[in-house]
Amino acid sequence: MNDYNRIEAYMLECMRDSAHDREHIYRVLYTALDIAESEPTADLEMLAAACLLHDIGRPEQFANPKLCHADVGSVKAYEFLIGIGWTEERAAHIRDCVYTHRFRSGNPPQSIEAKILFDADKIDVSGAMGMARSLMYKGTVGEPLYTLNADGTVNDGSDTDELSFFREYHFKLKNVYGKFFTERGREIALSRQKAAEDFYNALLSEVKSSEERGRELLRRISGR
Amino acid sequence: MNDYNRIEAYMLECMRDSAHDREHIYRVLYTALDIAESEPTADLEMLAAACLLHDIGRPEQFANPKLCHADVGSVKAYEFLIGIGWTEERAAHIRDCVYTHRFRSGNPPQSIEAKILFDADKIDVSGAMGMARSLMYKGTVGEPLYTLNADGTVNDGSDTDELSFFREYHFKLKNVYGKFFTERGREIALSRQKAAEDFYNALLSEVKSSEERGRELLRRISGR
Repeated sequence: MNDYNRIEAYMLECMRDSAHDREHIYRVLYTALDIAESEPTADLEMLAAACLLHDIGRPEQFANPKLCHADVGSVKAYEFLIGIGWTEERAAHIRDCVYTHRFRSGNPPQSIEAKILFDADKIDVSGAMGMARSLMYKGTVGEPLYTLNADGTVNDGSDTDELSFFREYHFKLKNVYGKFFTERGREIALSRQKAAEDFYNALLSEVKSSEERGRELLRRISGR
Repeated sequence: MNDYNRIEAYMLECMRDSAHDREHIYRVLYTALDIAESEPTADLEMLAAACLLHDIGRPEQFANPKLCHADVGSVKAYEFLIGIGWTEERAAHIRDCVYTHRFRSGNPPQSIEAKILFDADKIDVSGAMGMARSLMYKGTVGEPLYTLNADGTVNDGSDTDELSFFREYHFKLKNVYGKFFTERGREIALSRQKAAEDFYNALLSEVKSSEERGRELLRRISGR
């Protein structure tokens, strides 16, 4: 694939300010190629290009949260590929893959390459990786691990509007295992599900066990 | 304990800019009270004061990384307690607990309250909680989950000088289970060890499995 190196270089240039996201790009690329082994009609060259370019609109969304990185990135990808000599048809195919990689109702991926990219991107939100990425993101934006109920006890995230990692687990991370477009994608995600559940349960148990015992003892000495 | 509410209010005032650290304070307090149940000579009022005040030097260290929060906090705690009418002896006891809560060679905790605080603080670095706190911290300071070797493969953290979560696991998080001053502290930490190990192993396995398969497939299409 003669264009692989040029496309990769453009991706790295677009993402030069967010070094961590680069490893996400390669994980998505590798996972997509794994899925593609079970999808014989997939065009690997097109798929690799779509994976490399799928998040190049991130810097624009970061600078202006009203922008959607899938929208911005799809246009950037199309213009870049036309610029390096791709045909309109092939560039438009990658544009569509990038445009549909982020879940929005009424906007599902259509081609097999778009479906594989969608699944591979979602697999990076599953399992221990999904938990680790979410925790790092919470640290970046300054959200807490959990929030407290009015009585001072820890909210497990299932019943609160206050943003936290525990809430993210209940409203997003634990629910990513149901909606995949490829069988291999579903299989990889499901193989990672238990690691995520075990980690959340261990974390909650650590918090709750010390809290319950400690609050009872504190009541005795603080008089409240 | 009449002074509990006053000491808590001072802690909250000191840490008003770092809301997340407050939950760490309460976890340490609750864990310390749990440990103290097995240490009949511990003074619970003194212990609670030491736990509440142990990190009040954090803002100063954050503003000037050359400062040690244990040094700064010990002085602040002493002066605050003298200010609310504590005797010199009792205020100095809390000062010493705060001063020795952070591991530094040649500076071990001496009193039973200092030992319990040390262990309780360290337990918050163990288990799933230690992993979660470290990941959030890496996000805050902009360090990556892992770094790559010269050949582009993922470094598992055991053999690199580049800062990352994987390196932190190998050089700190996996090694916190050996050095405790109380039996109950050691028991709590050991009960959490497997959750941390399982999470790291799951994360590494997810990264490595997609990488190995994906790089082989990529070699075929990219020609490198």
